[in-house]
Amino acid sequence: MNRRRKIYEGKAKDLYEGPEPGTLVQYFKDDATAGNGAKHEIIDGKGVLNNRISEFIFTRLNGMGIPTHFLRRLNMREQLIKEVEIIPIEVVVRNVAAGSLCKRLGLELGTPLPRSIIEFYYKDDALGDPLVSEEHITAFGWATPPELDDIMSLAIRVNDFLTGLFMGVGIQLVDFKIECGRLYEGDVMRIVLADEISPDNCRLWDIKTRNKLDKDRFREDLGGLVDAYREVAQRLGILVETDNALTTGPRLVQ
Amino acid sequence: MNRRRKIYEGKAKDLYEGPEPGTLVQYFKDDATAGNGAKHEIIDGKGVLNNRISEFIFTRLNGMGIPTHFLRRLNMREQLIKEVEIIPIEVVVRNVAAGSLCKRLGLELGTPLPRSIIEFYYKDDALGDPLVSEEHITAFGWATPPELDDIMSLAIRVNDFLTGLFMGVGIQLVDFKIECGRLYEGDVMRIVLADEISPDNCRLWDIKTRNKLDKDRFREDLGGLVDAYREVAQRLGILVETDNALTTGPRLVQ
Repeated sequence: MNRRRKIYEGKAKDLYEGPEPGTLVQYFKDDATAGNGAKHEIIDGKGVLNNRISEFIFTRLNGMGIPTHFLRRLNMREQLIKEVEIIPIEVVVRNVAAGSLCKRLGLELGTPLPRSIIEFYYKDDALGDPLVSEEHITAFGWATPPELDDIMSLAIRVNDFLTGLFMGVGIQLVDFKIECGRLYEGDVMRIVLADEISPDNCRLWDIKTRNKLDKDRFREDLGGLVDAYREVAQRLGILVETDNALTTGPRLVQ
Repeated sequence: MNRRRKIYEGKAKDLYEGPEPGTLVQYFKDDATAGNGAKHEIIDGKGVLNNRISEFIFTRLNGMGIPTHFLRRLNMREQLIKEVEIIPIEVVVRNVAAGSLCKRLGLELGTPLPRSIIEFYYKDDALGDPLVSEEHITAFGWATPPELDDIMSLAIRVNDFLTGLFMGVGIQLVDFKIECGRLYEGDVMRIVLADEISPDNCRLWDIKTRNKLDKDRFREDLGGLVDAYREVAQRLGILVETDNALTTGPRLVQ
């Protein structure tokens, strides 16, 4: 993969030119960051697990008619995806109060929300990804009102599916973050799900033990991050290839 | 007025029981606060000027068919208003980047916005009046979607009127904050404009000199606040009664 041109370097993933026009290769790194990059560690095996978990979820979303950029997994750390124009908005769907919502509205961690809430954050590291509303997004032209409608419909469908999927394996979907892009096919433009869906951008709580099975283990220095991600993968029935990075270390103690 | 029961004590205004059911008396104080009350001063004459300026504006809004809580001014510091159920949202309309928007989105002070932007802040001093979106407002039931539609329509009409009104007297309306309430009349509920509109909750810049004619003079320790407010009143053609508090001190030097 080293001969391919790197197109984008992210905090947890890089993007390379794909084998044919209109495709890219999405490479999952082991980097974990929090606090807008203030905290940074390499966590062996995280990228491999996220590649598999995100493949699992995006494959099923494609199958349900929810359009995504995902084509197929290439290897342990790489996926072939369709090239899209990323909309510079992080879309957060919340079912239970956690993270910044608790602080913003004075809610206790774990408070069930009256209904799911969709939030938008402007993707700008220098500004700390500030919360914005539809007004800011449409006024500055980051997305049009019809695009926002598509994004919100897509976010709700993904939330419904993921809530059920995780509930089926004993996990509560607290919240998650997605990104969307514009996919141009001939004269047609469609909003599709991009980026990844993995424990890096979901909050996942074990329903029985309330154990955190997501990146909060890293944010809150709880340890056992790779074990938690492997637990999620195994509950979903995903067989993760044997890998030195994955066979070391103790299993998650519940 | 002292015999009336005080119903609400605010930072710049108090509310008393009105002379008949369904009415209240809104009393304008001289208190100026900023930074969520962190900074506090008494500025002689501010309340008298805001009472007159707000009377002027609300009278004209009523005349245009924009419903407000305002009935009539009673004296130097008091207005008779209709009792409404205040919606706990501060509605901010912005035409030019200033204040928190500059910080949030990294915009330079004075940048014209691509179009007017409506923002909502949850009225909660303990939380610092956080920015919220329609999603939070409707999920927590602070207002319904139809009420928000009414609030936004009202905010746009007020912005159009005030932009023209101030432009006519050489002042640029940068932004302003309003509050709305539910007015119950028989079986009918209507969203009406409540609170006040004055240089306490507008940003007003002299078009020629760029002088600030609003509460930023207090927030930024520029001095000359009452003179600036009196300048606004005089340009609008409002005759403010002679008052010891208003006849002292130098006029605003432009």
